[in-house]
Amino acid sequence: MAAGSSSSVPSDPLLRDELDIVIPTARNLDFLEAWRPFFQPYHLIIVQDGDSKNTISVPGGFDYELYDRNDIDRILGPRAARISFKDSACRCFGYLVSKKKYIFTVDDDCFVAKDPSGKQINALEQHIRNLLTPSTPFFFNTLYDPYRLGADFVRGYPFSLREGSPTAVSHGLWLNVPDYDAPTQLVKPNERNTRYVDAVLTVPKGAFFPMSGMNLAFNRELIGQAMYFGLTDDSQPNVRYDDMWAAWCVKVICDHMGFGVKTGLPYIWNSKARTPLVNLRKEHEGIYWQEDIVRFFQSVTLSKTSVTVQECYIELSQQVREKLGKVDAYFIKLADAMMTWIEAWNELNPSEN
Amino acid sequence: MAAGSSSSVPSDPLLRDELDIVIPTARNLDFLEAWRPFFQPYHLIIVQDGDSKNTISVPGGFDYELYDRNDIDRILGPRAARISFKDSACRCFGYLVSKKKYIFTVDDDCFVAKDPSGKQINALEQHIRNLLTPSTPFFFNTLYDPYRLGADFVRGYPFSLREGSPTAVSHGLWLNVPDYDAPTQLVKPNERNTRYVDAVLTVPKGAFFPMSGMNLAFNRELIGQAMYFGLTDDSQPNVRYDDMWAAWCVKVICDHMGFGVKTGLPYIWNSKARTPLVNLRKEHEGIYWQEDIVRFFQSVTLSKTSVTVQECYIELSQQVREKLGKVDAYFIKLADAMMTWIEAWNELNPSEN
Repeated sequence: MAAGSSSSVPSDPLLRDELDIVIPTARNLDFLEAWRPFFQPYHLIIVQDGDSKNTISVPGGFDYELYDRNDIDRILGPRAARISFKDSACRCFGYLVSKKKYIFTVDDDCFVAKDPSGKQINALEQHIRNLLTPSTPFFFNTLYDPYRLGADFVRGYPFSLREGSPTAVSHGLWLNVPDYDAPTQLVKPNERNTRYVDAVLTVPKGAFFPMSGMNLAFNRELIGQAMYFGLTDDSQPNVRYDDMWAAWCVKVICDHMGFGVKTGLPYIWNSKARTPLVNLRKEHEGIYWQEDIVRFFQSVTLSKTSVTVQECYIELSQQVREKLGKVDAYFIKLADAMMTWIEAWNELNPSEN
Repeated sequence: MAAGSSSSVPSDPLLRDELDIVIPTARNLDFLEAWRPFFQPYHLIIVQDGDSKNTISVPGGFDYELYDRNDIDRILGPRAARISFKDSACRCFGYLVSKKKYIFTVDDDCFVAKDPSGKQINALEQHIRNLLTPSTPFFFNTLYDPYRLGADFVRGYPFSLREGSPTAVSHGLWLNVPDYDAPTQLVKPNERNTRYVDAVLTVPKGAFFPMSGMNLAFNRELIGQAMYFGLTDDSQPNVRYDDMWAAWCVKVICDHMGFGVKTGLPYIWNSKARTPLVNLRKEHEGIYWQEDIVRFFQSVTLSKTSVTVQECYIELSQQVREKLGKVDAYFIKLADAMMTWIEAWNELNPSEN
């Protein structure tokens, strides 16, 4: 084995049989070569975005299944219209068809980052570690993740909360191109994220955060049913907010259920081609609506009778219809789509209910 | 100038005439030699803890005033009993007598830490930067402090919240000896914090955190009246919870007022002598009560008619008396002491009201 790059390749990969890697793509998956030492032991679910006539070539040696639009139409029938097209939001189809407990999803323009010592970061391994250790949503620990080697709960942390909560989501970050909105990209075209912050932390209960879908892992059994990426293809107005929609829904439900959401490590190297003017056109409606949406989510209360994620999600879709429906008719369509998502989930995962 | 160590010494120190450094101590202040390049431009308020007969020697060249117990008795009269004795909680007397807008308080066993490049960290300068830039308590930014050079708000962060909120508190961390409670010290006697996390973040609204008093800065004009460190001398049961008491009061009031509380950088090097068995004796009552206290603070609501920090603090003391008074009579004394603190503040700072 070469020194450095392979030192963090586990000989017996964690959760090999319990995790799927979901990749939305419209092009050849040459980027997988960079990830080979880390991803090859796992099963990939590739969701082809855009024209089904294009052939996606996958480097040899990977274990994968690939779904194009025809497959999605065939499997979901009329419900397929609720899975976005020509948009990376199509990744959530992979969450529907997976049968594993955990999901890691990554964009095809994300590469292996290096830590400050120059060692390649096994992002998947860090996500798994984040998911397998508890979260601390009910009290903030100033030395960050208390379950990490060399760290603990500090003085003043209530002992009754030290067992933590089940972790539902692990949100990883990005070196190089930061995930900025179009206006910020326009203002700071050359800004790159070079700061490696060596921390994982739990987003406290009641706090919302912008969750990017490009480097994200979650416990599908715990929270998969709320990981719908919305109606965001280019026939819809609210594009480029697919992952944010999932973020708001997931967080409000995790808070209700007592699950934890972590953010921080691992970093990937984001090489995303930046098209701020195109993005601005795509985003402007979302930027406009976002203020109402955030106010809505910050005031949502789910009833005590919603005791499963599915019940929470259905209740949330009703509140979206009632309250955001007044902002624009788009949200009534979105509320319908949320219900369709749950129907599709139940049909494809009958044993879960 | 020597390379490295002095490169972060500003030629024109920020806020020189607007900030006091408050140091509680019972011994000679030789530790100031290490801080000389950073602290010498500022005024020090030294609060002598313990026997007034001991002489505290202060290295030459520092501009300081020193208060011993006799001074505190003379200045506060009968109210002096509310300022803890034989405990670093006496530092809050320095907040009362300061006439500056900002306070930095540091323990005498805290030394200058180095960043990963080996450069000495000017902790005070970082605290000032934290205090002079806004906070983001209403939405979590995944790339941490958005006002820092090279960072910004990420995609999905509401534009209406990007102006941020006034920062009331900057809580710094510790390399070397972590601030653990006595049970954790006993279990992990040799654990040292070696992880430099290059981040400053706002503790979200509604989240509580354990605030250590050893490396702490705040805007005295904004939140000074809530920075009372409680009744924690050794005639009281609830010792070693002085800063935690302040933490809970400050956070609930900052949340009500819309002020921000930051934690993270800067690090100091904590060399604290560890006496876990002594600490366990001191802490056990606090550990026991802490669970009730935290539940109390997590459920406190301040009324809309409390629109100043002083009004909030008085309302909070009434709730402490009513609700925590049932846990132990100690909290009734503490509620009285909170009121006495406000009376003393008003007497010594008549122009503020």
